Amino acid sequence: MENFVYHNPVKLVFGRGTIPKVAELIPAKARILMTYGGGSIKRNGVYDQVTKALAGRPLLEFGGIEPNPRYETLMKAVDLCRREKVDFLLAVGGGSVLDGTKFVAVAVPFEAGDPWDILAKDAPPKAALPLGCVLTLPATGSEMNMFAVISRDSTREKLAFGNPLVYPQFSILDPETTYTLPERQVVNGIVDAFAHVMEQYLTFPQDAPLQDRLAEAVLATLIEEGPKALQRPRDYAVRANLMWAATNALNGWLGLGVKHDWTTHMIGHELTALYGLDHGQTLAVVMPAVWKHQKAAKAQKLIQYGERIWGIREGADRADQAIARTEQFFRSLGIKTRLSEYGIGPDRFEEIGQRLEARGERLGEHGNIGKKEVVEILRLAL
Amino acid sequence: MENFVYHNPVKLVFGRGTIPKVAELIPAKARILMTYGGGSIKRNGVYDQVTKALAGRPLLEFGGIEPNPRYETLMKAVDLCRREKVDFLLAVGGGSVLDGTKFVAVAVPFEAGDPWDILAKDAPPKAALPLGCVLTLPATGSEMNMFAVISRDSTREKLAFGNPLVYPQFSILDPETTYTLPERQVVNGIVDAFAHVMEQYLTFPQDAPLQDRLAEAVLATLIEEGPKALQRPRDYAVRANLMWAATNALNGWLGLGVKHDWTTHMIGHELTALYGLDHGQTLAVVMPAVWKHQKAAKAQKLIQYGERIWGIREGADRADQAIARTEQFFRSLGIKTRLSEYGIGPDRFEEIGQRLEARGERLGEHGNIGKKEVVEILRLAL
Repeated sequence: MENFVYHNPVKLVFGRGTIPKVAELIPAKARILMTYGGGSIKRNGVYDQVTKALAGRPLLEFGGIEPNPRYETLMKAVDLCRREKVDFLLAVGGGSVLDGTKFVAVAVPFEAGDPWDILAKDAPPKAALPLGCVLTLPATGSEMNMFAVISRDSTREKLAFGNPLVYPQFSILDPETTYTLPERQVVNGIVDAFAHVMEQYLTFPQDAPLQDRLAEAVLATLIEEGPKALQRPRDYAVRANLMWAATNALNGWLGLGVKHDWTTHMIGHELTALYGLDHGQTLAVVMPAVWKHQKAAKAQKLIQYGERIWGIREGADRADQAIARTEQFFRSLGIKTRLSEYGIGPDRFEEIGQRLEARGERLGEHGNIGKKEVVEILRLAL
Repeated sequence: MENFVYHNPVKLVFGRGTIPKVAELIPAKARILMTYGGGSIKRNGVYDQVTKALAGRPLLEFGGIEPNPRYETLMKAVDLCRREKVDFLLAVGGGSVLDGTKFVAVAVPFEAGDPWDILAKDAPPKAALPLGCVLTLPATGSEMNMFAVISRDSTREKLAFGNPLVYPQFSILDPETTYTLPERQVVNGIVDAFAHVMEQYLTFPQDAPLQDRLAEAVLATLIEEGPKALQRPRDYAVRANLMWAATNALNGWLGLGVKHDWTTHMIGHELTALYGLDHGQTLAVVMPAVWKHQKAAKAQKLIQYGERIWGIREGADRADQAIARTEQFFRSLGIKTRLSEYGIGPDRFEEIGQRLEARGERLGEHGNIGKKEVVEILRLAL
């Protein structure tokens, strides 16, 4: 096990009926900006619950944060915050709203140039507005981590940043808010959480048996509970378990002291930026291809995963079986696993490899996936 | 799943060579009291590492905190803190030193009478000295939780309290500090961590599959790594895995949203208070007896545990097999599982039941273990 430091100050408030607690979780005199997305919170009652709890408090709103939240949109929220002297951000929605709000939090006090530099040039933010969250979609783990992914139209980029300043002060997780999610979003969320676990887990044996088993615990839960959520959208226990699994998948705990492999997410971001695929859709396509390409390096972990998660115990091709079984699981959820199914050919594969290379990304647990390998992986995903 | 709130602000610093970081983790101007136990830290180099890192800083010492830390001893540390205006506590040692230091932390500013009332009468502490920890024994989980257990000679009581004020600000976990632990302490630690997981897990099916699997992940790790630590005391990976498992066992995460059953710990504390048995020794004796007594209520979980952890899949007596296999595991570590092996007979069983009843303890996940049942459990432990 490698040395590590872990400090996660997020206060989680989990369960049905907990949204009104937002009133006591936000400092009494705060000038609040409530951020949200396309308006589903107005249809499912979450907007009403939050505004009722905060009635009489200084509360502004900023709606319209899109999936893969856009820099261009978020800078309008930054202007609003500066103009209105907002001093607390409340994100109400899924990972995109929350990630966008994390960006706003560091952008508002950022004085060393364009806040985009925080993503594009690793410019270090020195301060952030405090933020809290009412989560309505289990997927990204953003509710209990310090990461955010932001897209920019003008450059067609989708980039990530991480900073302890953007840990939410609190996150309210009410599983009932997820009852009315469109099936496509539920599936995307399951695949996203699954990929988060896998990218911390599916590397090579690292003398870290507890990290492995914790990861397997989350995988098994996603595999069991995910399909049930599609069959019985209003089953509280199932929704609660799925929401809890997604938080566990990326609050940082599973992957402490071990090397990760975020190749799937990094390539996936490019596919979203260039083709507009949903984040979850990109992962279901790229992850099996990464494993096929890295099968030799990942063989021991693929075999362990296949055995412990899927009960694959026979055959010289156990690694292949584990990959096939995963694709099959994704397809059973109704999500595609091939680029060609989205009508995407190899035309821009070189460009994708180039973009990652230009940004100096070294992918893979050994840092040995470069432009050439990215193109090969994409070909395997066709 | 039941609603819950989780907020764990402990900063963990894990790995070899991390003890010098104590210097930056304690505020620069703090007047520090370093607390420790019987002096093993002077023999294994930990004392030197800490004092070297803090050289030139205002640093007092208080040694001699015993296993099952005593109120009488700790009140001397309280006096010292008040007299010397100590404003930061640094516990260096195992769970007893840390628990004792947590008590000192709330006792120093306590003005509403005798600080023992915090334990005996649930008197709420209103403030606490900040504290940090250099852990040298994986067992109690105290390094990442808000609990402490304190004993009092004059009344032969051993009582627990919990308060968010006593979360350590940081805990440094260097697995190398555990290389020289006596075997008996290592075994006690394994059994303690095992019991912590079990008391959150072995209840009844609560529609919380992730909590179950996370618990099973820690159990499997303790079972795999525990014996290796006895065979190869200086194997870093093994010591690191064991230390990490013990923290996972009781940082509060595994048992979120589910009912627990702390019967084993509660009865165990009485056996330590009355007979002086090590904490771990009491657990290895009491836990199998609790399960035997509660076999009907716990049958489903016993069968799940037996199957997932021990591979028990056949027979009408799978619950019995799971209990027997656990006793066998404890005995393989070299710890006894019967009171009679310690020369303890039934003479004071009634008194133990009485003491728990008098304190208003309602034991078990259903709160239905009273005086009569405690006596029956103790008889099963003979």
